[in-house]
Amino acid sequence: MSRSFLRIPSGRTLVRSTPFVVAAAVLAAFVVAGTAAARAGKDPLPSWNEGPARRAILDFVERTTRAGSPDRVAPAARVAVFDNDGTLWAEKPTYVQAQFVVDRVRALAPSHPEWREKEPFASILAGRPAVALSDQRALVEAVVATHAGLTTEEFEAVVREWIATARHPATGRLYTEMVYQPMLEVLDLLRANGFRVFIVSGGGIDFMRPWAEEVYGIPPERVVGSAIETRYESRDGKPVIARLPAIAFVDDGPGKPAGIQRHAGRRPVAAFGNSDGDFEMLEWTTSGPGPRLGVLVRHTDAEREWAYDRESSVGRLDRALDAAPGRGWVVVDVRRDWRTVFRPLRSRPNVSPTPAR
Amino acid sequence: MSRSFLRIPSGRTLVRSTPFVVAAAVLAAFVVAGTAAARAGKDPLPSWNEGPARRAILDFVERTTRAGSPDRVAPAARVAVFDNDGTLWAEKPTYVQAQFVVDRVRALAPSHPEWREKEPFASILAGRPAVALSDQRALVEAVVATHAGLTTEEFEAVVREWIATARHPATGRLYTEMVYQPMLEVLDLLRANGFRVFIVSGGGIDFMRPWAEEVYGIPPERVVGSAIETRYESRDGKPVIARLPAIAFVDDGPGKPAGIQRHAGRRPVAAFGNSDGDFEMLEWTTSGPGPRLGVLVRHTDAEREWAYDRESSVGRLDRALDAAPGRGWVVVDVRRDWRTVFRPLRSRPNVSPTPAR
Repeated sequence: MSRSFLRIPSGRTLVRSTPFVVAAAVLAAFVVAGTAAARAGKDPLPSWNEGPARRAILDFVERTTRAGSPDRVAPAARVAVFDNDGTLWAEKPTYVQAQFVVDRVRALAPSHPEWREKEPFASILAGRPAVALSDQRALVEAVVATHAGLTTEEFEAVVREWIATARHPATGRLYTEMVYQPMLEVLDLLRANGFRVFIVSGGGIDFMRPWAEEVYGIPPERVVGSAIETRYESRDGKPVIARLPAIAFVDDGPGKPAGIQRHAGRRPVAAFGNSDGDFEMLEWTTSGPGPRLGVLVRHTDAEREWAYDRESSVGRLDRALDAAPGRGWVVVDVRRDWRTVFRPLRSRPNVSPTPAR
Repeated sequence: MSRSFLRIPSGRTLVRSTPFVVAAAVLAAFVVAGTAAARAGKDPLPSWNEGPARRAILDFVERTTRAGSPDRVAPAARVAVFDNDGTLWAEKPTYVQAQFVVDRVRALAPSHPEWREKEPFASILAGRPAVALSDQRALVEAVVATHAGLTTEEFEAVVREWIATARHPATGRLYTEMVYQPMLEVLDLLRANGFRVFIVSGGGIDFMRPWAEEVYGIPPERVVGSAIETRYESRDGKPVIARLPAIAFVDDGPGKPAGIQRHAGRRPVAAFGNSDGDFEMLEWTTSGPGPRLGVLVRHTDAEREWAYDRESSVGRLDRALDAAPGRGWVVVDVRRDWRTVFRPLRSRPNVSPTPAR
């Protein structure tokens, strides 16, 4: 019977430790209703209010992992994917990476006098980045110009230093403190129950990897994103991987299932997103056989963060929202479902400006 | 002091368990020389003869993981990469995947009457596959023709069924029983000490992933290889990922560091290969700062397996062998260093013809 408990996100299972088993059994004798997690005596999702979204997530984990469950999923097949912008961290007033691009353009401008008369660089340097980057082609051009040229290790150092110090324009928080606490709890819950969790983002793979492990506990090989071309070469007599000014892969929309296949090599059984760019990822995930979970985060809370969906240019949620009921996708209503929105502030930054060696 | 022991490949560390600590301490008091592994009372590399290769591997693991070691590598940075053909399993008389291509051509021939007059298919169907596939372009054409068209899940099923039944032409063993026991022990040793191990092969990523987890314990996201293009699309009203007849990435030579960066997202600290195709992978790995390990397996044993190096068309080891002394790469001499070559036969196949669900 003890095997029916959810594993709580401590990294160990309750049934392996005798005192825990005894305590849990005593507790179970007094509790006649509630979720499996509640029976185990510890709430794995304390930042979630009771409601259909919370229940759907807990129910999915319980029935895909409990021994003897007809819906049990083999450990090797427990793969869950998460969009990043708007799903794991805030994407307003604009994508964090767009802010990084703006800062990079400013930092690199002294070496590029031609940018003073060339868009989108001229508008960025004139203090109108929103206008400059509203066009998709302009954004791609700015990304390529500011993300290429360096070696992979040089670029990692630039990203680390930026993310360790740059702050959100509205809240003054570090961007890594603009992450959604309820989603961190879902990551932990899934991992504690044997799932391998991946980020699958339209954002740059090499922009996310330097900090994803420290912020989300997700190692680089489980981060999937858009990429530019690279080439192994020699610089100053030392081998490097050079970043080239050409887009290699766009991990958005129908690119997300292809990116998942390329990196994870498996169709996921659970997918979490928040915009139409996640439509195909949720479709691919939830159209497989057996138990499936598709979740859309709908941003409905203008007081604690931002409210936006169908009309938003960044993070538009329209087609996927219409499709949700028919496909059984769970829609999280941030105002109603999340007790806490952002992760509580820590006493010190969680990303070191230098990588682990 | 107990923290100085290597973790043995049981998946648990000795120091967590009191009886082990006591036993190890008693043992240590009697042993005044030998490797750290020997002090722990269990040999993690029983299929390796005593010698410089074995010592170099044990020493590297010990000094990169022992608490307080000046060469200690942070757990997040413990990444090790392994070539597959000729390093983890046999590549003679030819690459296993070439044999798969031959069998696929035969199976698909009834639907391709034009192959009877078109090379390399005509020679394969006429029973002369070695001639047909000796040319690199011919091999690529045959791979594209036989590996595309299907969906990713259909292709996985084809590979699984083939690998579960196909047998090596010389030994009659399943190909998954043609894996090198000493290298399986190295994989286990590294994992037990917190390393994440990756396959980085010139072979097809989707040819290896279906069985790499069952045979090597390496999950799909840690398998890097050559790839063809894919596209998310709808077939018969169902979403699929279609395999397209175009090469997307060749993971060989200078492609290996690029493939490592794309998938692992980190420069490894240890690399194991056996041919000139692994040169850049070893170079990239061992030219980073801090402790590094580069290992080349040299096939010197014509009695227990095959002897080949500089003159071989498959698995040529020439340039990398010349470079080894100057770069500090360890050369494994199979005849001298390996007590056992192939993994002992098991009572039943280790790959299920159907995937875990």
